[in-house]
Parts: sequence; C-alpha cells; structure tokens
Amino acid sequence: MGDFTYCLIKNAVINGKKQDLLIEKNTIKKIGNIENNEIDKEETKIINAENKIAIPGLINTHTHIPMTLFRGVADDLPLMEWLNNYIWPMEAKLNKDIVYAGTLLGCLEMIKSGTTTFNDMYFFLDGIAKAVDEIGIRAVLSYGMIDLFDEEKREKELKNAEENIKMIKKLDNNRIKVALGPHAPYTCSKELLMEVHEMAKKYNIPIHIHMNETLDEIKMVKEKTGMRPFEYLNSFGFFDDVNVIAAHCVHLSDEEIKIMKEKNINVSHNPISNLKLASGIAPVPKLVENGINVTLGTDGCGSNNNLNLFEEIKISSLLHKGTTLNPTIINAKQSFEFATKNGAKALGLKCGELKEGYLADIVLIDLNKPFLIPKENIYSHLVYSFNGNVDTVIIDGNVVMENGKIVNVDEEEIYEKAEKAYYKLIN
Amino acid sequence: MGDFTYCLIKNAVINGKKQDLLIEKNTIKKIGNIENNEIDKEETKIINAENKIAIPGLINTHTHIPMTLFRGVADDLPLMEWLNNYIWPMEAKLNKDIVYAGTLLGCLEMIKSGTTTFNDMYFFLDGIAKAVDEIGIRAVLSYGMIDLFDEEKREKELKNAEENIKMIKKLDNNRIKVALGPHAPYTCSKELLMEVHEMAKKYNIPIHIHMNETLDEIKMVKEKTGMRPFEYLNSFGFFDDVNVIAAHCVHLSDEEIKIMKEKNINVSHNPISNLKLASGIAPVPKLVENGINVTLGTDGCGSNNNLNLFEEIKISSLLHKGTTLNPTIINAKQSFEFATKNGAKALGLKCGELKEGYLADIVLIDLNKPFLIPKENIYSHLVYSFNGNVDTVIIDGNVVMENGKIVNVDEEEIYEKAEKAYYKLIN
Repeated sequence: MGDFTYCLIKNAVINGKKQDLLIEKNTIKKIGNIENNEIDKEETKIINAENKIAIPGLINTHTHIPMTLFRGVADDLPLMEWLNNYIWPMEAKLNKDIVYAGTLLGCLEMIKSGTTTFNDMYFFLDGIAKAVDEIGIRAVLSYGMIDLFDEEKREKELKNAEENIKMIKKLDNNRIKVALGPHAPYTCSKELLMEVHEMAKKYNIPIHIHMNETLDEIKMVKEKTGMRPFEYLNSFGFFDDVNVIAAHCVHLSDEEIKIMKEKNINVSHNPISNLKLASGIAPVPKLVENGINVTLGTDGCGSNNNLNLFEEIKISSLLHKGTTLNPTIINAKQSFEFATKNGAKALGLKCGELKEGYLADIVLIDLNKPFLIPKENIYSHLVYSFNGNVDTVIIDGNVVMENGKIVNVDEEEIYEKAEKAYYKLIN
Repeated sequence: MGDFTYCLIKNAVINGKKQDLLIEKNTIKKIGNIENNEIDKEETKIINAENKIAIPGLINTHTHIPMTLFRGVADDLPLMEWLNNYIWPMEAKLNKDIVYAGTLLGCLEMIKSGTTTFNDMYFFLDGIAKAVDEIGIRAVLSYGMIDLFDEEKREKELKNAEENIKMIKKLDNNRIKVALGPHAPYTCSKELLMEVHEMAKKYNIPIHIHMNETLDEIKMVKEKTGMRPFEYLNSFGFFDDVNVIAAHCVHLSDEEIKIMKEKNINVSHNPISNLKLASGIAPVPKLVENGINVTLGTDGCGSNNNLNLFEEIKISSLLHKGTTLNPTIINAKQSFEFATKNGAKALGLKCGELKEGYLADIVLIDLNKPFLIPKENIYSHLVYSFNGNVDTVIIDGNVVMENGKIVNVDEEEIYEKAEKAYYKLIN
C-alpha cells in the first residue's frame, strides 16, 4: 500500500451486502458503513468499489509453482512418458534463476485470477521466496524431498530441508511461511518420513505430501509394506501431533478415510490435474460427509495447465454431481469454501473469510461482465460462471493489483524473463 | 465492417505460422504474406495483430440463448424441482421483448468468449432474430416444439414451426439460418416427428433435437415404444435424407451408436450441463472411434451457467481421460476441432477453419497473458489454459468486437435491458 497505513474499500458487495471495509496495516479492521470523517484521509488509500464484489482471496493448497514454465510442453501422454521424456529432463536443468522466473510468472497468473495464497512444494526455495517477496503474494513453501530408499540421499534431503526451514525463517517475511515436503510414501523411506515428522514437531510447521494419487503407487506401497498408504504412515505415528496437507487423495479405502478423519488430515483436491493425468476422481462427497477438511489445488502447470483456481471451484462442484448422478452434491457454497475458508484452516492462516480481525487478503471482482448478469445469485455466478479475471487484489493489506494492473512488478518483464528461462530448459 | 470492402489482419499467428489474412466482403480471400501495395488502402480496414493468434470462431451447437436471463436462479437441485419450481414458471412469463433482451446478453457473452455461431432452440424467434441481427453474430434458429402427444397441440406447434421458417427466410439475412426443433422423443409424438421430417426435407433445413439426455427419459421411451430412442426414431425413417444435430447423447447403447454412424448423426456434446444436472457423462471416445461427428454445446445458462465454449473444450478433453483412466484420450487438437471444424460440418456452414474461400468468422486472441506463456504450444494453451477472454471478433467479414470493445451495440444498455427483463421474469 506504499505510504498508507489504512485502506478503505467503499461500496463493495461484502458478505452478500453493499458496504465498506477498512483495512489497518495487514488486517481487516472494520466492515460496515464507514463515513469519510471516520478516517484519516492522508493516511488512507480509498478504493471506489461501486459495482464490485469483495471476496476473500483464494487459497491454492497444492502447487509446484516454478513448473508454470512447463505449461503445454507435453499433453495427452501416459504418466511415465510424460515424466521420463519431458518433465524430468527439464527439471534436471533447473537453477535458482530459472525457478525465480517461473515463480514470477506463476504468481502473476495467480494474482490475476484471484489467488492470494499458495502452498508449494519444489526446489530452489531461495528463488521462489525472492519472487514471492517481490510480487507481494502469500505463500507456504516446502522443499520437495525424495530419497528413493537410499540412505545417503536421505541424509542430504533432510539437511536440505532443514537449511531451507532456517533460510525461510530468517527472511522474517510475514507473507512467507515454511513447511516440510516429503514427496510421497512411494518415493520416501520410512526413516525419512519419521525424521520429517520429528522436524515438523520441532519447528511447529505443517507437512505437505502427495497421497494416493494413482492406483500404481498404492500398489507399490502395498507390495512393500502390506498396507495402503494412509494405513502405512499411520502405523508409525506420522499423522500424530502435526498438521498434514495431503494432496490428491484420489483412491481411498474406507479404512483410510477413517484414519484421515481421526487424524484431522487436510485434503488438497486437484480435480483438473487428476483428470488430465487420468489418475481418477477423488471421492470428495464421501470426504465431506465424514467432516474431513477439503481444500483445492491446481497442481503444477505441467498437468493442468493453468493456475486459475476458479476452474477448480467450478469443476469440483460439477464433477461429483456427474459421477454420482446426484445434482445436489457439492453445492456452490461448499466448493467456494474449499477454496477459501477451508484452505486457510489447512494452512493455519487467519484468512479465507472477510471478518474483522482477519488478514486483509481481499479480491475485488467487477460485476459489469456479461457472465455475471443478472446481478442476483452472485455467489452462484462466481462458482458456475466466472472466468477468474479479477479486478483488484489486496494481500496482507497491500494493493498488489488495481483495476487489472499489477503494482510491484513489470508484467512485460516477467513475460520476457519467463520466455528466456523456458528456452534454457528446452535447449 | 462499416464502409470497408476489405479487412487485412497483419502479423497474426495463423494456422501455426505468423502471417497475414485478407478478407473480401464476408470471405477469407488470401492467407500468407500480404504487402500493403496489394491492397486498396481506402477500401481496407487494417488490423494490427502483432502478438495475437487468429483462430476460427467457435461454434456452439446447442443453446437456448434467451435462458441467459436464468443464470444462477436455481443450482444444485434435482431436475424435476429445477424445472417445476424455477424454469417453467419463468418460461411462462416470456414474451418477445424479454427474449430479445436475454438474447442480446447471451450473444454479447458469446462474442466476448470467441463464439461466432450458435445453434439455438427456443420460442419467440422474432425476438431472437432481432438481437442476432443487431449484434452481428451468426445463428441457426429453431422453434422448440412439444406436443406431449396431444393432437391439438401438435397442429399448433407444426403451424408455428412453419411460420417461423417463413419468417426467418423472409429476413434474407446471410447470418441467420433456420432449423426445425422438435424437443425430444419423450415430449413429441411420432406423428409430430414424422411431419417434422417431411418439413425438413421440404425446406432443406436441419433438425435440432434433444436425444438420450437422462436415464429417465430413455426409460419412458422404452416403456412407450419398446425401443431405445435412436432405435425408435430410426424405425420410422426419421434420420433418412435429413441433417440431424442430436444434443446430449449421454446414455447410448452400441446398437444406437451403430445407427448414429449409419445415419451420419451430428452429436452436440454438452459436458458441463450434463454434469451440473447430473445427467451423466457421454461416451465421447466411443463416438469418436466410430467416426461420428462430435461438436460442442453449452446448453442454456439455466444449467451451465455460462456460454464460454472454451470451458467445454477443456472439459471435453479432461473428462474422458479421467473416467477412462487413459490420458491419451481426446487430445487438444480433437476437442478444439469439436468446437470449430466439426461444428461447421454439423450446421452445413463453410467456416470453422481458416482457409481461403471460407466464411470470415475469425477470432483474435492476445497472447500477452500469463496463462498463455511460454508462447510455444499455443494450441495446447487454448484448450487447457485459456480463460476465453478474446480480443477481437470478426463475423461474416464484419468486425463485431475490436480490442475487447463491442462495436454494434452499447454494452451497458444490454446489461440494463437484461436486468429489467430478469425482474419481469421473477416477479
């Protein structure tokens, strides 16, 4: 917000009613009718939000943000061909600068489509954190660990993870948190997972892990351990006294759902990525029935291919109706909460709702668009009709985009950097 | 195009290559490198399309366009509750002016999301045609007939249909064609369907009909006739010597698919509407394997809730991967062709491809958007990443939108008209 201590949003639709919202520093101070004489004009940025709706910024709970550079390099392929011939050769060429360029592009795309927080797992976290800091988005970053059951690799991965924790903590940036990112039960040894669990408790940070994405990986875990993945991890206390965000959760047994419920596992549902890679369709209605916290993620742009969380909202409401043949399943309010309130809960952040005392992560959407008219049932429109093209974005009390124009960075420069980084990856 | 005979699009990406495109009247005259001295500057509108891609305008093969006013009035409901308590009471209040207002809104939305042609079934075709004429879009209009097996109703419906055919033909508007719209085999008598078949041959116009949308309606037809819907219609020659666009086709037997193949039925696949109303998921991979012409439709905004055909393109490529667990099914090229080339074929129009001699229905998309970068594999981005927000639209050689600004009508006025019409419907 530059030099302002306060920001006043005037005449927006907020929580279903036309009213004003006052931000002090990074927090929502008041929602209601706020008169001009209540504020210090010199210290207050005023945003005229006539004909706009204010919503809490969306929370994307599963991304690999530098992979935004991988958009469209390989579609419509079997998983192993996709990984072996495209993704892994490109990942081998990554460095801090390339990751920085990819993160800038990804963050720009997220901000422009209303996402204010993302939960990421990747490498070169210094490059990611630099971009996050500059563009002004909120993030939870984890270093992705894979030891492939090799002791030497394990030691290295754990050392890297702890160094990254210290590095992020040292930044002391209110918008950048750290988590632990063991890749998955089929790529990480039991020893690694147990050490991760200890480290998560020691630093009091969440664990971000891929779970039950494909039938193949579940088979692998079962062959190795005699148990399904959630049973296996639960057998050595992996879920005890820590906050876990489990991405995908496509194929689940009833016993596993029971464990997830008991251990308060947060699910990051990634419907588009799961469809595109033909992993399957997660049993979301069943998870919701069991009171499990469902959130939404885009996954990386290698398998989506965008970061527009409004698409996840729409598809998560549609998909399960179609597969259960029940049109009342996952209503608009539920899928909108997946992407806001539930995401905040999963990440332990006081945001995801427009309430006094909450973090000022706010998105304004211009209602004068054909697909948002008639201007009734606007929350239905946001779920079933909106294309994600938002107007103004405030994160941690700072205006990072205003009337479609990004504030802290030069858009064209981001595009150029991204193109250059991409050509380094493919050549 | 106002006073210009020619329109020259300079430096666009066209068919995968940066080149120019010259339009003469309503037709693509030349694609290639076109020098300024090849054209008559006084007679030519020049569009600088640097950094833009030109694609054929999308073709939406199943809509009920005035229902755009019904957006969001009722979501997440069982079909009969949705129809009885919301849709039918609102439809009872329709008149020409309301239909005109709803059509303007729908056409505006379609143009802004790159659709240049739609195939519609509804009532008050004079109101629809008026809006289509004014805004500049291309349409095939049919009057929706339902006799519910009542002879008196049948005579009335057939009379209405024929009057509408004459009315549309009399307009003599190159952009507005007419078709016959018997609603469905479970709402129309055999006698009506036979007369429709005769009329379609007499006037040489297509038939637009709902087929096999829900399990319930198939059961009804089977109970009444002993046959599944496609078998039943085929039993009295309904598909012979006419061009049929069959909307939905969600539940199909192998025998029905055989009939569809033999009779060259065009399918309008409406994946979003079918998911939202929990009708099911159409067997599109099987239809494609059998060489059946698959096209895309949004259906009406009562069950979608928008007209953004790019969403149908993305979902039609995603959905069938997820349900078959095969990531190579329905690739990007195929789903893009569903919405372009195949749609044109279904409607018998010489468009849907950028080729010399084809109708100049062309959409320009600005590539400087975060979700379209890196700027390689652009066709993948259009299918899997684009949000549908297009830049410039040319229909029948006329520029109807330029740089996001609609040309022939006042946007704000359309919104006002739509809101007023909506309040008439709900009060």
